[in-house]
Amino acid sequence: MLAGGLGILATGKRRTASEELQTVLHGIVPLIAACSYFAMAIGQGSVVLPAVASAGPGATRIFYFARYIDWTLTTPLLLVTVCLTAMHGQHKRAGAFAGIVLADLMMILTALFFGASEVPWIKWTWFLISCIAFLGVYYVLWVSNLQYNRSERDDVRASYRQGSTMLSVLWLLYPVVLLVAPDGLNVISDPMSVIAISILDVLSKVAFGFLMVASDTRITE
Amino acid sequence: MLAGGLGILATGKRRTASEELQTVLHGIVPLIAACSYFAMAIGQGSVVLPAVASAGPGATRIFYFARYIDWTLTTPLLLVTVCLTAMHGQHKRAGAFAGIVLADLMMILTALFFGASEVPWIKWTWFLISCIAFLGVYYVLWVSNLQYNRSERDDVRASYRQGSTMLSVLWLLYPVVLLVAPDGLNVISDPMSVIAISILDVLSKVAFGFLMVASDTRITE
Amino acid sequence: MLAGGLGILATGKRRTASEELQTVLHGIVPLIAACSYFAMAIGQGSVVLPAVASAGPGATRIFYFARYIDWTLTTPLLLVTVCLTAMHGQHKRAGAFAGIVLADLMMILTALFFGASEVPWIKWTWFLISCIAFLGVYYVLWVSNLQYNRSERDDVRASYRQGSTMLSVLWLLYPVVLLVAPDGLNVISDPMSVIAISILDVLSKVAFGFLMVASDTRITE
Ligand SMILES: CC1=C(/C=C/C(C)=C/C=C/C(C)=C/C=O)C(C)(C)CCC1
Ligand SMILES: CC1=C(/C=C/C(C)=C/C=C/C(C)=C/C=O)C(C)(C)CCC1
Ligand SMILES: CC1=C(/C=C/C(C)=C/C=C/C(C)=C/C=O)C(C)(C)CCC1
Repeated sequence: MLAGGLGILATGKRRTASEELQTVLHGIVPLIAACSYFAMAIGQGSVVLPAVASAGPGATRIFYFARYIDWTLTTPLLLVTVCLTAMHGQHKRAGAFAGIVLADLMMILTALFFGASEVPWIKWTWFLISCIAFLGVYYVLWVSNLQYNRSERDDVRASYRQGSTMLSVLWLLYPVVLLVAPDGLNVISDPMSVIAISILDVLSKVAFGFLMVASDTRITE
Repeated sequence: MLAGGLGILATGKRRTASEELQTVLHGIVPLIAACSYFAMAIGQGSVVLPAVASAGPGATRIFYFARYIDWTLTTPLLLVTVCLTAMHGQHKRAGAFAGIVLADLMMILTALFFGASEVPWIKWTWFLISCIAFLGVYYVLWVSNLQYNRSERDDVRASYRQGSTMLSVLWLLYPVVLLVAPDGLNVISDPMSVIAISILDVLSKVAFGFLMVASDTRITE
Repeated sequence: MLAGGLGILATGKRRTASEELQTVLHGIVPLIAACSYFAMAIGQGSVVLPAVASAGPGATRIFYFARYIDWTLTTPLLLVTVCLTAMHGQHKRAGAFAGIVLADLMMILTALFFGASEVPWIKWTWFLISCIAFLGVYYVLWVSNLQYNRSERDDVRASYRQGSTMLSVLWLLYPVVLLVAPDGLNVISDPMSVIAISILDVLSKVAFGFLMVASDTRITE
């Protein structure tokens, strides 16, 4: 499978190395993703499901469930690193962590049901629920965290704003891609959507990881 | 499915809203349950299993596995909020949290095997193991926590005693209902048991959540 | 099933009892394992899979998946207790915990794919990935933790060195056994491998648990 092979190659350069929690988390996130890409590449991370009803009888689509397992593990870790940056110099607020991680898990789990469902109205209800949970993530990022962040030094605030902006923009593209992918409306082809998601993954895991670790190093100094 | 529809309606008014960890946790618990009820209502959260042997050949029962996924996520959160109240004004003891959450997870996981098993003696052995784990939860609530709680202010102690009493009584009804439900002895009908569990869920998630958040607000002042 | 019965018997004497986090964790680990052994003994924790291709057509093997569920829960707990000992008298470093637990989870999850795969090259690639993650665990144990541990009292350092040595040696035997077991090369018979793993489990959970709790009691005094 071409796209999977691409994915494996792409994961080769994913290892970041340093010594703090930020680095450990950002370093392990791409490694988990690499395992998930490997599973998808060899066919253990996907199943063939019937396509949504409107695609005609007998039509099928590949459903990459490994992606959702990957996201279940990695997205909470990414959000935790962002929250850590937001509250860099102060006592960490457990409420913000609990809220963002639980909202994120609900987003991913309901998205798994979205991906696995066949009946259109059920599918799109799950999509809607997932999007509402996604709004919960944005709420913590842009309301709660921003408030805690207000009392930080200027460079910490700049770091946080940069990190959470990049995250918000990149993550917003995921639902857009899945909306038009075979999991959703089936507008773009399967290899296309795999490539799009792979690019997003590299950006939101590797590029984002490098950025966060670098800015964390900067604000620690 | 009638009972499922009821469940969805019942979840409509479940959203509590405030700002601290207690609130976030108590606010998200019913939302997770709402997703689980939705899944059960549309038939994605249950499978048809053969009834226990004694019910005669060919007999079937509906096994709502989504309920156990829901409980795996929500019961630890509820117990954590209670432990937080117990140790309101002091350093939190990791041992109590680890003990109660792990006992709770064992209770739910073995209960899942109880629900999924068909051979009677295996089924009831799982039930027994689950009940023993449940005793572990009670032990932390009524022995360990009560001891830490002794050094708290009077109103905190009253709050804790109220919260843990309500929790202990409500949770005790779950094994009783499942004992007579189709998962267990099959004495009451499937809709009956679904309604009973739904009422218990509303009480132990929504009512309990409101109570805890209110009493937390009171003791914070 | 003989070996399973042995397992249940062996778990009878597993209950350690005391009062701190160390004890709670070490006490619950064997209880989780006992449930897993029970499930395997009654046949709910294993499935019959086709043997690897080289074993000839129609050959089958028993795949004990319950073991991996057990390990997913218990190995992080064991590693956490070791890290707690390493940083006994100081502020706990979240990075070390995150690193060792995530490396461990990757080791177990990829090992699950190793156990479940049939095509040889895929199987052994998973084995290799799992071993690399295992090296990550060793790294935290012998590099990061040892460094934090340097600033501890002499008896804490002796305890840590004893605990992490015992853990490292015992855990190293797991991949060796699974390498020759039916999950891997199929050199030794199924009952043989079950007995070997059971002995290792008793040592690395019960014996190790007693040792750690005892040494924790000693360094607390
Ligand atoms: C809201 C929403 C979605 C959002 C997904 C996101 C935001 C995924 C982010 C993944 C990342 C960042 C992975 C790795 O680093 C889905 C599931 C597409 C579909 C349903 C609606
Ligand atoms: C001991 C025991 C049980 C206990 C269940 C409990 C105590 C469930 C509580 C659920 C809550 C509180 C859910 C949501 O808020 C089962 C599984 C019925 C059956 C096996 C024995
Ligand atoms: C590296 C590696 C393995 C290591 C397993 C270990 C180290 C298991 C430890 C289990 C314990 C300690 C359980 C209970 O207490 C496997 C899965 C055998 C096979 C793949 C490679």
